[in-house]
Amino acid sequence: MKTQVAIVGAGPAGLLLGQLLSASGIDNIIVEQRSPDYVLGRIRAGVLEPTAVRLLEACGAATRMHREGLPHSGVEIAINGVSQRIDLLALTGQQVMVYGQTEVTRDLMDARAASGAQSIYEADQVQLHDLETAAPWLSLNVNGQAQRIDCDFIAGCDGFHGVSRASIPADKIQTFERIYPFGWLGVLADVPPVADELIYARHERGFALCSQRSKTRSRYYIQCDSGDQVADWSDDAFWAELKRRVPEDVAARLVTGPSIEKSIAPLRSFVAEPLRFGRLFLAGDAAHIVPPTGAKGLNLAASDVGYLWQAMCDFYKGDALGLDRYSQQCLARIWKAERFSWWMTGLLHRFPAHTPFEQRMQDAELDYYLGSEAGRKVIAENYVGLPA
Amino acid sequence: MKTQVAIVGAGPAGLLLGQLLSASGIDNIIVEQRSPDYVLGRIRAGVLEPTAVRLLEACGAATRMHREGLPHSGVEIAINGVSQRIDLLALTGQQVMVYGQTEVTRDLMDARAASGAQSIYEADQVQLHDLETAAPWLSLNVNGQAQRIDCDFIAGCDGFHGVSRASIPADKIQTFERIYPFGWLGVLADVPPVADELIYARHERGFALCSQRSKTRSRYYIQCDSGDQVADWSDDAFWAELKRRVPEDVAARLVTGPSIEKSIAPLRSFVAEPLRFGRLFLAGDAAHIVPPTGAKGLNLAASDVGYLWQAMCDFYKGDALGLDRYSQQCLARIWKAERFSWWMTGLLHRFPAHTPFEQRMQDAELDYYLGSEAGRKVIAENYVGLPA
Repeated sequence: MKTQVAIVGAGPAGLLLGQLLSASGIDNIIVEQRSPDYVLGRIRAGVLEPTAVRLLEACGAATRMHREGLPHSGVEIAINGVSQRIDLLALTGQQVMVYGQTEVTRDLMDARAASGAQSIYEADQVQLHDLETAAPWLSLNVNGQAQRIDCDFIAGCDGFHGVSRASIPADKIQTFERIYPFGWLGVLADVPPVADELIYARHERGFALCSQRSKTRSRYYIQCDSGDQVADWSDDAFWAELKRRVPEDVAARLVTGPSIEKSIAPLRSFVAEPLRFGRLFLAGDAAHIVPPTGAKGLNLAASDVGYLWQAMCDFYKGDALGLDRYSQQCLARIWKAERFSWWMTGLLHRFPAHTPFEQRMQDAELDYYLGSEAGRKVIAENYVGLPA
Repeated sequence: MKTQVAIVGAGPAGLLLGQLLSASGIDNIIVEQRSPDYVLGRIRAGVLEPTAVRLLEACGAATRMHREGLPHSGVEIAINGVSQRIDLLALTGQQVMVYGQTEVTRDLMDARAASGAQSIYEADQVQLHDLETAAPWLSLNVNGQAQRIDCDFIAGCDGFHGVSRASIPADKIQTFERIYPFGWLGVLADVPPVADELIYARHERGFALCSQRSKTRSRYYIQCDSGDQVADWSDDAFWAELKRRVPEDVAARLVTGPSIEKSIAPLRSFVAEPLRFGRLFLAGDAAHIVPPTGAKGLNLAASDVGYLWQAMCDFYKGDALGLDRYSQQCLARIWKAERFSWWMTGLLHRFPAHTPFEQRMQDAELDYYLGSEAGRKVIAENYVGLPA
């Protein structure tokens, strides 16, 4: 097989890139190790920045999002039971769109199917070759048959554990990492959300987040210990702990129900530099992970893809500058989003190893940033996404 | 002897409180372990917030400050040689006053001498008694003679190492502390300042600060190792290292000269809670220390003193509420200033133990806060002092 861009990974980053390239007349093939149902079964983020919304519009995959998604003009931050609203719209002139990553993925899959572009699911033993030449290629096994895809470029959109980043020689890539001493236990349930907007709650027992995927589906999280297992947490135990951490009025009107998904995610900050090795370009989780506190993971992936799409369009018009600048351009945005995610995580979680002085610094940060208009604007402009 | 308020410590906090009380007709005696010359020999801060300026005006000790002090409407922050200005005036509507703490102390001493209020210098073996009664008293030795001062209140303005805080039973006070893994080596020299405004420089070799006390006297600092001794640093070595850390154009026009004072200060964050024990009220460094990066030490002392003065005036008019609220009122301001000082210190210094991820977070913080108007306003409004 031969294509212009071989995309490794059919998560939202790979699918979005594929649709944008197809819309620009650039041929691409997506290769994915898993099945479509597996990909759709991964429950992830649910908050889209305006930049991500514009990219979905640009590739014609925004119709259902605009119909079913929930534009949010603010978020609540509750500190030990007392809630304060960050008015995103008033502070920045922008809103965010609440629409589950699963729905984004489904819309992109449908759009891809309609466009007739090729996707290869359940591809085994994907390997990347000749990345430092002008003729890179992928080898893979499909239904036991060895295949080869020749291409101009490979886009590594296959996540943190994917083969793309692992194909870069260790001396050509530098990584930065922080592991947080806790995780998020998340429950998805078909119950109406407790509030119209997200509630980020900081409580002495730990962080909690009330979020929603639609008017009938809610996603709730609580900070848990690093060593906790899903089996340790019955639905009842989850709901009881969530209610302890949110303001009393929120707890009183919280509608509970059986979990339709329950999982524990570790919290990690990770960046690989640079995002390019020869003809391989990393995008999304393959290059960087943020803790979910700032709702930045999917949005950063989308902004990487936006840059890569533009750069590839420019390349096929004869201008390679965008590809040369791709890594640097992405990293400027990535590091600011990493900072915000790290800072919001530090602000809102309980850190078992904090000294009494560090605990007071956390209190003082919240007190200052929530009490100052400039402070609230710092939160708001980062939350809706900094300008490119 | 008998007085209404016995003030322990004749630094700027004690002297300011004494003058404010005297101006309000409240009798006070200041007791100081050292000589006036020793007190004047301590080189400290040089940046006054508007709140501190107003208090000096209120007690009639602001005339020379307004004549000789330098109002600053901005500060420079230089990152690896590239400078950016924080326009305090445009961002907050306020300026700071550059005027050395030594000069403030001298003006307050002169004002006190003119008012005829009593000060006892070189007092030995000062001890505080019966603090939990309505009749506290001080014992002390003056020229070998035992003395006793009976009073209504004792104001503990005797600094971090003073007897006042040490007189509070350990189970009645809680302390919070952070020691930073570096110090500041400061040089005072009679050379014209290199710039009209302060320059805070962050460099891979460490922090540096260019500041001024007047148009002919400069105060420069460089971050040094915790273990360094003044004797390790010749004047030449100091100037050479300073020039390496500031932007090239600043280094080129820096006028050097013999140091008239050279000292190393460790960097510490410290808070004691509460600030009251019975009839003893702590103010200034006796209750809290900040690293000097945010120029908050003298200003926090002044704001404590401002609250205590008002509360004592109210008390003698029959309203004790201000004294009951004193500690809480001060601490709200103290913790925010501690936060800013800790944050500015973290932002601008080299931390030997930082991981590569933490180094990048420091870069990203600078990049974000200096590049965003909301971020610059966060710096500016904290630098000029948050509203009471």
